[in-house]
Amino acid sequence: METTEVAGRVPKSYRVRVELESLLGELSEGDPLPSERDLALRCGVARETVRQAIRELLVEGRIRRQGRGTVVSRPKMVQPMSLRSYTEGALKYGRTPGRLLVDWADIPADPDTARELGLEPGTPVMHLERILLADGERIGLESTFMPLDRFAWLYESYNPETSLYAATRAKGIWYAAATERVETVLASPREAALLECTTALPMLLLHRRSVDAENIPIERVRSLYRGDRIAFQATLRD
Amino acid sequence: METTEVAGRVPKSYRVRVELESLLGELSEGDPLPSERDLALRCGVARETVRQAIRELLVEGRIRRQGRGTVVSRPKMVQPMSLRSYTEGALKYGRTPGRLLVDWADIPADPDTARELGLEPGTPVMHLERILLADGERIGLESTFMPLDRFAWLYESYNPETSLYAATRAKGIWYAAATERVETVLASPREAALLECTTALPMLLLHRRSVDAENIPIERVRSLYRGDRIAFQATLRD
Repeated sequence: METTEVAGRVPKSYRVRVELESLLGELSEGDPLPSERDLALRCGVARETVRQAIRELLVEGRIRRQGRGTVVSRPKMVQPMSLRSYTEGALKYGRTPGRLLVDWADIPADPDTARELGLEPGTPVMHLERILLADGERIGLESTFMPLDRFAWLYESYNPETSLYAATRAKGIWYAAATERVETVLASPREAALLECTTALPMLLLHRRSVDAENIPIERVRSLYRGDRIAFQATLRD
Repeated sequence: METTEVAGRVPKSYRVRVELESLLGELSEGDPLPSERDLALRCGVARETVRQAIRELLVEGRIRRQGRGTVVSRPKMVQPMSLRSYTEGALKYGRTPGRLLVDWADIPADPDTARELGLEPGTPVMHLERILLADGERIGLESTFMPLDRFAWLYESYNPETSLYAATRAKGIWYAAATERVETVLASPREAALLECTTALPMLLLHRRSVDAENIPIERVRSLYRGDRIAFQATLRD
């Protein structure tokens, strides 16, 4: 059996990266990294080479900007892939959940939304767009689309900075099953502005469609999460 | 309730992107895109602005390089998050699965691998590293770590370009449950070379730990997938 050969040349940025990983292993959360200039001297490479390795660690959330320097991040938040709400997942992980309302209005369903909610295209649906927070940090941007005929009561009594699942469950509506698709994309300029990051940061994009116990669609959700701040975990059974 | 304001300025690259999306809507899989020069003229922007929008569409797998130009890609492959094998998932999605062996040898377990497999650090484990193919395209890089005492027989009878799950199941070993974590990262230069992409392409990184019906660990798997070629889908139940 032949094995596949790997290109032998290891770029300098990768050697610096290995050096930085070893350094990170010795530091604790919140500790500052040495300056780019000091790291370049220490590794014997150009500052641009150090900058490249630092960019990679920023993308992966291992370090974060603080003032003019960089410090060691705390580990990424891990959110369960389940029918529980974001609120429950964050609390379980020891983070304080929060939400900022971006938009909440009726809009005509586009063809994909209409199909997933079992409606005719153009039917008005409720659109709720919120920034998800963990300990006050912006972690995701969530767009929820719901059939208006069943959920118009939310406008009267629901506070959009609280859990939507808790509010609908309190009305006796049960999320019985969902499909959830995960992929990676780059943010649009609008999304990057709302999540206070750059358009070069890889994001996790989740698409969810939930149904109730009678298999009637409840919601279509598009959530975009900062890849440097969160991971998702599923439990699989046979 | 105050709503959060969005920065009003829309970069030219985003306007070009919207124009390109509309163009993609009219084209079919394999159709060529107009040249950068033609697109720049058509949108009335600099070629560098067009180049930026094209880079984003490449990252998302909407278009791909072919020769000196770009053509419309087919939709991303969607792989179920389940205890089924990659082989089964790919076949179900109408793609021909394949594998290329990169490495297959005993290595001492690092502390994380040892913990997940219930072994002492440094205990030899079997490491199987393979490139995953779909219709001959490189789609992922999978590293599997297994306890040597239970799986040494694989060296005798297993062809590493076939399904590992099928081979172990044929021996009566059943994958009863697993946890799977999904995040997004950038590839290292070695990984990018093996997957024939650049280190700027966002990747999906999956970590899986599987156990048998007696809750004894079977494997630890680290898989890195090209974000422009694949998405994962979970089915959630209450």
